[in-house]
Amino acid sequence: MAEIMLVVQKYGGTSVGSIERIKEVAKRVAATRAAGHQVAVVVSAMSGETNRLLGLARQIAAQPDERERDVLVSTGEQVSVALLAMALKETGYPAFSLLGHQVQISTDSAFGRARIKHINTNRLLSALRDGHIVVVAGFQGVDAEDNITTLGRGGSDTTAVALAAAVKAEACEIYTDVDGVYSADPRICPHARKLSRISYDEMLELASLGAKVLQTRSVELAKRYQVPVHVRSSFSPEEGTWLVQEDPSMEEVIVSGVTSDLDQAKITLLRVPDRPGLAAKLFSPIADDNIVVDMIIQNASADGFTDLTFTVPKGDTPKALARVKAAAPEIGADGVVFDTEVAKVSIVGLGMRSHAGVAARMFQTLAREGINIQMISTSEIKISVVIAAKYTELAVRVLHDALIPPAK
Amino acid sequence: MAEIMLVVQKYGGTSVGSIERIKEVAKRVAATRAAGHQVAVVVSAMSGETNRLLGLARQIAAQPDERERDVLVSTGEQVSVALLAMALKETGYPAFSLLGHQVQISTDSAFGRARIKHINTNRLLSALRDGHIVVVAGFQGVDAEDNITTLGRGGSDTTAVALAAAVKAEACEIYTDVDGVYSADPRICPHARKLSRISYDEMLELASLGAKVLQTRSVELAKRYQVPVHVRSSFSPEEGTWLVQEDPSMEEVIVSGVTSDLDQAKITLLRVPDRPGLAAKLFSPIADDNIVVDMIIQNASADGFTDLTFTVPKGDTPKALARVKAAAPEIGADGVVFDTEVAKVSIVGLGMRSHAGVAARMFQTLAREGINIQMISTSEIKISVVIAAKYTELAVRVLHDALIPPAK
Repeated sequence: MAEIMLVVQKYGGTSVGSIERIKEVAKRVAATRAAGHQVAVVVSAMSGETNRLLGLARQIAAQPDERERDVLVSTGEQVSVALLAMALKETGYPAFSLLGHQVQISTDSAFGRARIKHINTNRLLSALRDGHIVVVAGFQGVDAEDNITTLGRGGSDTTAVALAAAVKAEACEIYTDVDGVYSADPRICPHARKLSRISYDEMLELASLGAKVLQTRSVELAKRYQVPVHVRSSFSPEEGTWLVQEDPSMEEVIVSGVTSDLDQAKITLLRVPDRPGLAAKLFSPIADDNIVVDMIIQNASADGFTDLTFTVPKGDTPKALARVKAAAPEIGADGVVFDTEVAKVSIVGLGMRSHAGVAARMFQTLAREGINIQMISTSEIKISVVIAAKYTELAVRVLHDALIPPAK
Repeated sequence: MAEIMLVVQKYGGTSVGSIERIKEVAKRVAATRAAGHQVAVVVSAMSGETNRLLGLARQIAAQPDERERDVLVSTGEQVSVALLAMALKETGYPAFSLLGHQVQISTDSAFGRARIKHINTNRLLSALRDGHIVVVAGFQGVDAEDNITTLGRGGSDTTAVALAAAVKAEACEIYTDVDGVYSADPRICPHARKLSRISYDEMLELASLGAKVLQTRSVELAKRYQVPVHVRSSFSPEEGTWLVQEDPSMEEVIVSGVTSDLDQAKITLLRVPDRPGLAAKLFSPIADDNIVVDMIIQNASADGFTDLTFTVPKGDTPKALARVKAAAPEIGADGVVFDTEVAKVSIVGLGMRSHAGVAARMFQTLAREGINIQMISTSEIKISVVIAAKYTELAVRVLHDALIPPAK
């Protein structure tokens, strides 16, 4: 007889986007319960609902009150859990819903971007032990003053992982519309393959790839509490990708994935006198504008001048340029140039820590195709390069074929 | 300087039926606050929203789980309070929303028809004292196990009156789309006039008239806790009708109102042997079907037989007839006849307790118009007659003109 497990399943907005889909989800959950497992389900709002509610709020005020906005949008998940619990009861299993404040998912009071501080598992665990299926509203919590809070975009992933950590679930299954995490985007790279396992650290580095299936914050949480996360398709019974703690065998795979990010713009200050405090003078005002600077390259030459290049999200280019141009005279730059037609291409892999020569192979592979590298940045398990945007797909394909062995 | 009052205002679904109307309500509430008063506001779901949500539930299950149905429909009021609180903040006054469980409106666990047991006023009163406008979700409460409950149709009236009682408000203002309670339906009776005051007991007897503006249950609650309720129009600044404890002067008005009810059907059992236990045998199975029997007339003749006539809501006629026909042979009735083309017309007034001859004047007035009286039923402050439906409007008009003095 198979082992009885405690499983947390999370279904996103598309999976509960219509009454028919909610009934399909109910069947899937009931099947897990029928196999003898204990099941807690986390659901998002029906797709489109959160935007509909925010649209109402914006008709009232350009900047709606943040506390009330959370009261408003949290109704989206409340509708989903009620409907799914009803559908589950139709399958014959005892089931009920719990909202954030009913579970007691305690958060801080940062409305719209609250962080979970503690989850009370008493009511949840006793219901699961009694054979109930518990449907928990994703994305929402409650602060110390009994106010409703929400966790921000993708918050239901965070709820699911946090819940799985709190109840010590054997698995946290994230159901989505793709069937797992791939070594590269299959639409770009025909040889891309589904990874059966990936380490939390690799998944974090693959953020731009991973963001399509899992919010970065939920991966950080999974890593901290070592929650086994299973990313899989809601339309197929096949296994997807397991996010796990690394083990020795994983280092045998040198590169796990290749990823690209077109949401990048490059800004360069020309011939800046290389004096202490330069970076602070430049980047403090940019940070004040909440612009996230990704890569920074400073290359001092012997004559005491330096070119300073950095990247920002493409949409922030005008704001960043305004700040840079305002600072340029003070720091003595000769001029400012920028380029929005760039891409960041990265290779990620635990094995890079112990295998020399990976960077060299990456650069050689790109050089062979005549692709010029504009910037380089490395971390322990990642190498990123900035190249001209037009070469993005080509770069991903050749790096994948050169560095990732074909599936057996 | 005017006295500072604590006022509870209630706005129904039509009053908050669109973003524009919500903004209008915010203006009205802010004006009350600007006059120096403390204001708590109770709102219903936007019109149509509760039915939309129930429609979703019915697509999941013919009989949706009752607990989850309350989780679902209570989102309607949650959306309204959030939007109104946002709109109030735009007026510059501090305002926030409270849901049933946040106020702590404690109810029993009868989902869909819960009764309020206790209201915690701590958070509410301290916020009002600090100058905040508090927007409370109508229709919803929380049971002892922290489950969401709802109070049934018209529950927001009940929330408003119960809240006014709990905080000892100087007034509970019920804003609606009519401008008060009338001595008769103005569409039927051109001489009908708006009552400036009416006693709780009269309002209860005028239920079929009053149901258009106020739920019976909220009137019972107002009577028990002597809450001064002010029924008035959300579209006009004029005073409406005050529901108040009776005072001696009110007995001077013999008849306050005339009302009619077309939702009646009459069922008669012919020549039943008049034996003890007859009524029990007949009415127990009807009660088992949750059919509310209104008037019952039994008139025994000297030969030991009786005709037995009673009225039921028109829609329950087929169910009631089935029960009666099943019981008829056992109780020895000669036959069963029924009539759905009947109406109940009533006159209501505190003064009837001390003034003789009101009934006689009522019967004479109807006789003068050739209107045959089929059944009569009286209470201390009400006389009801059943007549042919076609005479309804005529009966209301002649009774109003004969028994209610014209406005000065």
